[in-house]
Amino acid sequence: MATTEDDRVEEALGDILREYLPRKLEERLPFVTLTYASSLDSRISSGPGVRTAISHVQTKAMTQYLRLHHDGILIGVNTANADDPGLNCKYPVPYSREQSPTPLVVDPHCRWTLSPDAKIIQLARRREGKAPWALVRAGNSYRNGQETILREVGGRVVELDDFAWRAVFTRLKSLGLDSIMVEGGAHVINSLLQEAALVNSLIVTVGSTYLGQNGVQVSPPAPASLTNVKWWTGIRDAVVCATISS
Amino acid sequence: MATTEDDRVEEALGDILREYLPRKLEERLPFVTLTYASSLDSRISSGPGVRTAISHVQTKAMTQYLRLHHDGILIGVNTANADDPGLNCKYPVPYSREQSPTPLVVDPHCRWTLSPDAKIIQLARRREGKAPWALVRAGNSYRNGQETILREVGGRVVELDDFAWRAVFTRLKSLGLDSIMVEGGAHVINSLLQEAALVNSLIVTVGSTYLGQNGVQVSPPAPASLTNVKWWTGIRDAVVCATISS
Repeated sequence: MATTEDDRVEEALGDILREYLPRKLEERLPFVTLTYASSLDSRISSGPGVRTAISHVQTKAMTQYLRLHHDGILIGVNTANADDPGLNCKYPVPYSREQSPTPLVVDPHCRWTLSPDAKIIQLARRREGKAPWALVRAGNSYRNGQETILREVGGRVVELDDFAWRAVFTRLKSLGLDSIMVEGGAHVINSLLQEAALVNSLIVTVGSTYLGQNGVQVSPPAPASLTNVKWWTGIRDAVVCATISS
Repeated sequence: MATTEDDRVEEALGDILREYLPRKLEERLPFVTLTYASSLDSRISSGPGVRTAISHVQTKAMTQYLRLHHDGILIGVNTANADDPGLNCKYPVPYSREQSPTPLVVDPHCRWTLSPDAKIIQLARRREGKAPWALVRAGNSYRNGQETILREVGGRVVELDDFAWRAVFTRLKSLGLDSIMVEGGAHVINSLLQEAALVNSLIVTVGSTYLGQNGVQVSPPAPASLTNVKWWTGIRDAVVCATISS
């Protein structure tokens, strides 16, 4: 499927991932995949707002593969502001906007500091990624032209009355997104680890490093058990695929 | 080597572990292996003083295998008090005291609440494990008969002026221990993760569960990089073997 060696998901990993990919659900909810990469000490970055490389090229390819298989890709506004992420799918190459998921930024209080130069806007403008949607609480609005920036590239502001995860996902499904991949940040991940009924697949990359106590950590408020567990291991990283038990 | 299926370390895991086992070092330091089991969110227990099962039977067998290959097994006093651990080697069966490592409890301020009924004392009395040594700061002494309890089973109190890890390990080597396995708890692990020059092998079991934010976490004060990384994966757990980079 891929045109270069580096983009390819290793066969053994691909075989495992296939079991955890979205399937059509006969309900009002989309298929939700929760995925992130952490260090051995469960840090997703070495500090708030610091972009930190954890994954080896093998598991970076996995992220692209997963993006290819989802309609939407969801992050919290803190991650959007801190990382200036692109969130498009660059695999397989040459890539087109059609293969990318729609970026979804959870931003109830309109705190997204979106500029026309944001990577996500540039990619949409160049048709290398889909235009993003901002999910805001009904009644709140952006004050620095963010809505205009979104609209100019075909994006939108989606107003919600209820930010409970079930309500958010139900709304996204009603808007045509059958599968959502959640990539972060820590606040979003920690709260979704407690939503066994809403998360269909969990895919975690564990990198063989320690980011230390000042890093941003993943750990849910209460314990969470996993079932249907499969591990893959690569040169530097391991990947665990699972279902969260209810 | 083992007599029952459950005691056996799986062949693929054994092949990996062999590369990380103690070798004789031509210096004043013993070979030190740092090993622990954590959840995906890097918790070694669900709360302070709570014994928490993380490992599958596959990796429990690994702990016994590692104990068989070390002269000493070191823990901090908090773990000794909270867990009442046995620390003997029950693999292969039938087991004898000779195959067990010497339990070493780091207790500078003589806080070990050791009783004659402690599992570690019972095992030494029944000759199913070696008698423990308490490492205390010179000038401090036990006030509730702990030294007598230790001596009655052949154990001892070792006085040290310096509790820097290099001094502790040098002393233990001088007392005849060529290899030391460090099992916990969090305070000991976190400080040794910053001692690349003293730790020869790191062996971490990652269990496919989340223990949550109230759990006791492993995360060193500063980042730590690993080299010579090898992963093994089992039914529920993964194991990463590595060397800490200096």
